[in-house]
Amino acid sequence: MTLFTPLEQLLGDRLATSDAIRQQNARNEAHFPLAMPDAVAFPETTEEVAAIVRFCAETGTPITPFGTGTSLEGQHLAIKGGISLDFSRMKKVLEINAEDLNVVVQPGVTRTELNEELRATGLFFPIDPGADASLGGMAATRASGTTAVRYGTLRENVLALEAVMSDGSIIRTGTKARKSSAGYDLTHLLVGSEGTLGIITELTLKLHGLPEGIASATCRFPSVEEAVNCVILTIQSGLPMARIELVDEMMVRGFNIHAGSDLPEQPHLFVEFHGSPSGVAEQAQSFREIAEDFGMESWAEANTTEARNALWKMRHGAHFASAALRPGAQYGTLATDVCVPISQLAEAVLQAQADARAAGLVSTIVGHVGDGNFHCAARFDPNDPAEVEAVHAFAGKLNETALRLGGTVTGEHGIGIGKQKYMKAEHGPALDWMRRIKLAFDPKGILNPGKLLPPED
Amino acid sequence: MTLFTPLEQLLGDRLATSDAIRQQNARNEAHFPLAMPDAVAFPETTEEVAAIVRFCAETGTPITPFGTGTSLEGQHLAIKGGISLDFSRMKKVLEINAEDLNVVVQPGVTRTELNEELRATGLFFPIDPGADASLGGMAATRASGTTAVRYGTLRENVLALEAVMSDGSIIRTGTKARKSSAGYDLTHLLVGSEGTLGIITELTLKLHGLPEGIASATCRFPSVEEAVNCVILTIQSGLPMARIELVDEMMVRGFNIHAGSDLPEQPHLFVEFHGSPSGVAEQAQSFREIAEDFGMESWAEANTTEARNALWKMRHGAHFASAALRPGAQYGTLATDVCVPISQLAEAVLQAQADARAAGLVSTIVGHVGDGNFHCAARFDPNDPAEVEAVHAFAGKLNETALRLGGTVTGEHGIGIGKQKYMKAEHGPALDWMRRIKLAFDPKGILNPGKLLPPED
Repeated sequence: MTLFTPLEQLLGDRLATSDAIRQQNARNEAHFPLAMPDAVAFPETTEEVAAIVRFCAETGTPITPFGTGTSLEGQHLAIKGGISLDFSRMKKVLEINAEDLNVVVQPGVTRTELNEELRATGLFFPIDPGADASLGGMAATRASGTTAVRYGTLRENVLALEAVMSDGSIIRTGTKARKSSAGYDLTHLLVGSEGTLGIITELTLKLHGLPEGIASATCRFPSVEEAVNCVILTIQSGLPMARIELVDEMMVRGFNIHAGSDLPEQPHLFVEFHGSPSGVAEQAQSFREIAEDFGMESWAEANTTEARNALWKMRHGAHFASAALRPGAQYGTLATDVCVPISQLAEAVLQAQADARAAGLVSTIVGHVGDGNFHCAARFDPNDPAEVEAVHAFAGKLNETALRLGGTVTGEHGIGIGKQKYMKAEHGPALDWMRRIKLAFDPKGILNPGKLLPPED
Repeated sequence: MTLFTPLEQLLGDRLATSDAIRQQNARNEAHFPLAMPDAVAFPETTEEVAAIVRFCAETGTPITPFGTGTSLEGQHLAIKGGISLDFSRMKKVLEINAEDLNVVVQPGVTRTELNEELRATGLFFPIDPGADASLGGMAATRASGTTAVRYGTLRENVLALEAVMSDGSIIRTGTKARKSSAGYDLTHLLVGSEGTLGIITELTLKLHGLPEGIASATCRFPSVEEAVNCVILTIQSGLPMARIELVDEMMVRGFNIHAGSDLPEQPHLFVEFHGSPSGVAEQAQSFREIAEDFGMESWAEANTTEARNALWKMRHGAHFASAALRPGAQYGTLATDVCVPISQLAEAVLQAQADARAAGLVSTIVGHVGDGNFHCAARFDPNDPAEVEAVHAFAGKLNETALRLGGTVTGEHGIGIGKQKYMKAEHGPALDWMRRIKLAFDPKGILNPGKLLPPED
């Protein structure tokens, strides 16, 4: 008889305590140390999740939801031990409501799995972070990605959800109607709460019609400043970009190493247009006219599906391409993701490049600049205190710059473990009201403890 | 020395206790009885709002925010007495950030006042309920209107806000960046909370570029069913409608009386397209092809700015045009605003029409059907118990239908006083978690008491 005997009775061999399985869920792609849960539970139904949470509430056991383990601020890590709640067996697409442009999924379905299921419908789920993350994890971290400039983030694309709350009760929030004014918006309180207020067990997501016409291209600029100023004017002009990604010269070098491309090592924009075939042509022409004003030096279209897929596969490999600039399993990557008002984008990006150079860091810039959001990925040796200090000082300066310019320290990665130290600076007195919500929703502190909210002073 | 002496010392003659001024804020355009506040406060700054709230917290005085008094579920009525917090002296447009497509306003600014201020910028704030409501009130009720099908509701258009909380503390939520994953989404918790969790004292709103091309038209259909099925197919086909409003035969009769129009008394759609001039023409053509498949009998374009303004002025007079079908100050209007998934729209609308006829009610239908949202406005004599019962039975049945079809009892008017009785049916166990938030944010129950949350069983 162990602490977990009741869960073993409930789940059988879907409650794992072996080192191998616990270690699988203890890893991360960022720079955080291994964090071993005491056990990994693999529920198959919402009722099982509720039973597990009731067990955790009764025994004071921490419970940390786990999707694909691709979060970049350690949200999935069971840093206080307890249960890693692994959604890899909750992968059903429950309803495809094509006529209402929505879909109901379990949280373990990944975005590519969903789009595979939707293939015959003419609809798609456009939100696209680099990783093939689970939709539950994407909702929990309010993820976005390359297409948010056109289709919004998970905030704009979750219509309704089901969640298990800290006492094991099951709630449903929102409806399948496109809008509602009926009471407090629990849906959008839970989206982005990183599993600290409730555990998402079902999502109703908006779908979008596959565009008739798609055009993608890469274009090269003489400097980052001109590339970014091109982005600013493009957004201000109201051009409905589907994607507009900045890739700096270091990132290009990383792609050339990792993806075998042979792009000149200069700043690029990777762009995409969605619409009717004639609309897409019109948009591309308008964009090229703006880009030429900023000295665009080349324009290469990716005209076939294969070429387009190769382009975005390369882009989505940015995390590993950055790592390739300083290879070695001993090194970690600190990935920032500030987001600033579009008018401040040039200042933020140039400051980041200058700071990285001044600190002697191997660091790339890539980002969803149409939203004012960009990433620096800096490689460092976690066992070298000087490097650790340098990389954190760099990130800290960048985050301060973002706040000074009216932005946020995280456009899409979330707070997790790594960004708690900026919560007070970003939110000021509002942080106290976030704490009130946490206390009201999870008085025992069992839901993903140690995440999102910084320790009280 | 009275209870309000400290407030008089703070505000001077901006603290009014005269019958005349209290009565101004006690009225409503719906069917609720007069609700007199004990005093009306006219703050000019956030700091004054905070001081008033601190006074209310210390003395246990209820405080009810008041914008223009146009809410339709009594949100602005001080039904427990206390202070009516009137924002008519907080009407500053604080910042117009054209290059970032946003604006910072005080809550008393109305939507037409804001658009007047924006006139020189080429930008506009598109959200458009019928009334010229205050932006603070629109945010507090999560309002929308005719253009939400294209531009979203207040939920999608508030970037950041400032609010005074129940202890008088001032918080700022959100940033001017277009997206963020930094912690709990307090912005969208406060939007739609009807002043029960905090009092909005400043809003940062998204702006949109004025479209180069606009085309509006009215079109007539042989039956409501065919008009609604045209809407359903239009939305499912992804046509980016800027407005698509259903007007049933009774509503047309009301317009003809109230606005002096001479439309045939048949169901109509009022539509509008925004885009480039060629895009608008393309959209209108695509729409007409769909409409013709559903038996469209006429197509009348409103080609000049004057004609367009007249069309939407008529549409925005729907509340008074409905009243004109049964004139007399002694009658009230019960306006419903269910919202259903688009695939269920025909069933909901036809059921509503049949129920109104069966109950012998004078009732119109008009609505933002592109969102699945429509209004029935039923006239009744509040002093005739049989009529009161009939109209509430009608509304109850309609709300039950909306919930059965997967929708919501309120697409845009909010809960206020009138819809509390449906909160349990719509939200189930989630209602308990809304109560937890209210208790955590307003433990003394001073913020707009008696609104949104139904009394506990």
